Amino acid sequence: MSLSELKEEVYKANIRLYQSGLVISTFGNVSGIDRGNSLVAIKPSGVSYKKLTPEDIVLVDLEGNKVEGKLNPSSDTKTHLELYRAFSNIGGVAHTHSTYATAWAQAKKAIPCLGTTHADYFYGEVPCTRVINDSCILKDYELETGKLIVDTFKSKDYHYMKAVLVACHGPFSWGENAIEAVEVSIALEEIAENALYSILIDPNIDNIKKSLLDKHYLRKHGRGAYYGQKKDNKTGQL
Amino acid sequence: MSLSELKEEVYKANIRLYQSGLVISTFGNVSGIDRGNSLVAIKPSGVSYKKLTPEDIVLVDLEGNKVEGKLNPSSDTKTHLELYRAFSNIGGVAHTHSTYATAWAQAKKAIPCLGTTHADYFYGEVPCTRVINDSCILKDYELETGKLIVDTFKSKDYHYMKAVLVACHGPFSWGENAIEAVEVSIALEEIAENALYSILIDPNIDNIKKSLLDKHYLRKHGRGAYYGQKKDNKTGQL
Amino acid sequence: MSLSELKEEVYKANIRLYQSGLVISTFGNVSGIDRGNSLVAIKPSGVSYKKLTPEDIVLVDLEGNKVEGKLNPSSDTKTHLELYRAFSNIGGVAHTHSTYATAWAQAKKAIPCLGTTHADYFYGEVPCTRVINDSCILKDYELETGKLIVDTFKSKDYHYMKAVLVACHGPFSWGENAIEAVEVSIALEEIAENALYSILIDPNIDNIKKSLLDKHYLRKHGRGAYYGQKKDNKTGQL
Amino acid sequence: MSLSELKEEVYKANIRLYQSGLVISTFGNVSGIDRGNSLVAIKPSGVSYKKLTPEDIVLVDLEGNKVEGKLNPSSDTKTHLELYRAFSNIGGVAHTHSTYATAWAQAKKAIPCLGTTHADYFYGEVPCTRVINDSCILKDYELETGKLIVDTFKSKDYHYMKAVLVACHGPFSWGENAIEAVEVSIALEEIAENALYSILIDPNIDNIKKSLLDKHYLRKHGRGAYYGQKKDNKTGQL
Repeated sequence: MSLSELKEEVYKANIRLYQSGLVISTFGNVSGIDRGNSLVAIKPSGVSYKKLTPEDIVLVDLEGNKVEGKLNPSSDTKTHLELYRAFSNIGGVAHTHSTYATAWAQAKKAIPCLGTTHADYFYGEVPCTRVINDSCILKDYELETGKLIVDTFKSKDYHYMKAVLVACHGPFSWGENAIEAVEVSIALEEIAENALYSILIDPNIDNIKKSLLDKHYLRKHGRGAYYGQKKDNKTGQL
Repeated sequence: MSLSELKEEVYKANIRLYQSGLVISTFGNVSGIDRGNSLVAIKPSGVSYKKLTPEDIVLVDLEGNKVEGKLNPSSDTKTHLELYRAFSNIGGVAHTHSTYATAWAQAKKAIPCLGTTHADYFYGEVPCTRVINDSCILKDYELETGKLIVDTFKSKDYHYMKAVLVACHGPFSWGENAIEAVEVSIALEEIAENALYSILIDPNIDNIKKSLLDKHYLRKHGRGAYYGQKKDNKTGQL
Repeated sequence: MSLSELKEEVYKANIRLYQSGLVISTFGNVSGIDRGNSLVAIKPSGVSYKKLTPEDIVLVDLEGNKVEGKLNPSSDTKTHLELYRAFSNIGGVAHTHSTYATAWAQAKKAIPCLGTTHADYFYGEVPCTRVINDSCILKDYELETGKLIVDTFKSKDYHYMKAVLVACHGPFSWGENAIEAVEVSIALEEIAENALYSILIDPNIDNIKKSLLDKHYLRKHGRGAYYGQKKDNKTGQL
Repeated sequence: MSLSELKEEVYKANIRLYQSGLVISTFGNVSGIDRGNSLVAIKPSGVSYKKLTPEDIVLVDLEGNKVEGKLNPSSDTKTHLELYRAFSNIGGVAHTHSTYATAWAQAKKAIPCLGTTHADYFYGEVPCTRVINDSCILKDYELETGKLIVDTFKSKDYHYMKAVLVACHGPFSWGENAIEAVEVSIALEEIAENALYSILIDPNIDNIKKSLLDKHYLRKHGRGAYYGQKKDNKTGQL
């Protein structure tokens, strides 16, 4: 994929995010990476989705230096870059303040895995980071937000859990490319809403059992997955 | 109805499901049966509703063998087939992960019958299955899900209760044909939402009394039903 | 207004109800009355809003005899007629199963008057009837539902409170004509939703004080009302 | 900006408010001020948004005398004028009965600052006024509502907190101009919804810490703000 194709894909992913209703105003941002050239294409900061064009997408290197583009990249760029550096197989990152996922992030709680809709997408609870330290806020806030996410995944496999809630903030998600990162954020919002209603019906509800989680996640993503049409069924590896 | 008309009807029912907002992405599936030929038309697995065409609808026999179609049938096909085998008068089955019905399924609770909207469609609480056994998950999961539903109806009449919640999963519904199965799933989502709000207003609320349930259900579905225009008023028999 | 104009207005009011999103499927019905001729125009029973035409609107007299129209009138016709007989100044009646108002009706609770939005439309709590008696259910259910509403208004003035919740069922509303009855049902749904969220934030919340209720209701509806443009400001009399 | 341009801008801001879904029927109103001429352009009272034209916008002076326009100005005009008199740097005011913000106002509670979405727009809890006194209701209600808001800001800086909840009523917001006032009311509704869901997940949730609030509010609005593209980044001064 050429860099101009990458910019086009990242543009489309941002528009998809906007049309899904997950972001309002200038909130949210999606990026994609060209691993060969180590270049990241990302939404410019504070630009309205209605006015966004493929040419507005900014190219930066993995250290955050602007390589192409007239506009400033997203203020969250350093968070994206930290994820690309730490999660070496991901190709796209999305960030939203979507209503229900953000509600869980604000409550500083992981989204429990209460049903098979959740298990179809996420292999267990969607984790929530701890609250960021004051020193990290003052130092290099967006970079430290990325490190906080990476720290949360020290004992988790980012291939099987493609989203995280940043405490007091909102969700980040990732995938093979920018489009998949957006699809994950859409699914995340759906299961965040489901989970809220379920705990309102029964506050003592617990995660589904491991056998059911395995069955649903792995029939879509594991080796021998049999959901869908394609030969290239997901194997759990991005 | 010819097999090609059946495929067209099942296609339309799937599109209706999508347009109703009850499913996102590739979730959900609707099927219809030709009882004469013992053939079931069902949505292909993992295909986006936006790209679905009548030709994509897959025909399978009651043992699950593909009879016509290029694509794989829905991964939930065996659940549908078990329902067709056990509930001999139904003509269509729909499965969704609709937001509110799924919330009740995840809470593993029947939807209480709190008002006449519910009673207009469902003759009492919409039941929730028990959680599927580990051995059933490992054996033939989708078939066993069907058996679980059938087991839940051992002492219930599927003619009067056209929907069920599969615990930790979501709703299945049925009807005379694929279109009615979808209409039932739309009504189910509405009453699932109503019921959630009602228990938030008063957690101690109870089912409506039998006399009121009878009145509403039977004026639409019983012998001597007087709701609507048609001479062929429902008699409670599918 | 001629009878054909009345039918046209009732048709438009039904369509307005549908477009407002307060009804799904064939639920809900709106009627209007010609007081001079003592004739009521009402939606036919079980007809989809998408297919409804002005010609489908049925004319009945105050005893429920069909005077004009090919279709059966709404199954709730007798409830409407009882309201027209008892509330001699109303010109239109609307019935919905709208989501939030129905949730309060199912909880068998009046909607508390928690703010000025409510007070702009309704002069105090929107009352909820008691649950209908078994003997009334068996006798002449729809007529008895009307009587139950009228009984609830024994010590209330229907000019100042243009809506009611029928316990375990849903809301009825009324007004000068069919269109106003629909507008009231739209406002009712809005304040029912507001009230639910308010009690979730603070379960101990109480009705607003009388002075604030008076101020808001009467600046729109009382003598000397100063809201809006028209000289014919509402005087609290329909 | 000429007075006719001001009327056009206020017209557009009112339409933006309507299209955002924050108001129904004739609820809500937006105004803008020409500080040079001390004239305020405001929506007429009780006019439907669908029928509103730029010519309908009414011009009044800061004492409330009509200077131009055929229609009566909004019944809330005196509240707007009090805000313009007390908050000398604001250029626009918006008032809605939006669903979630109104729910908090009805519960008579400030909206807690539970996350960075909130902190991106509002520098701390969005305050709620005390309930208006009976004497103020009887005297000059709309003027006194304005005074109540101003009183709530005695020890707050209206540059950093551009919205308020009037207890038992609903939100008012303001900004550099009419359009910004509407944008603030849209953001307010979003964070009011987020906050409701968060307290349903965890009723004991607390405001985010000062360091995180500062970081988010000030990166968008403080001196040295680095969010967005423009050189004219907000400095916290309107």
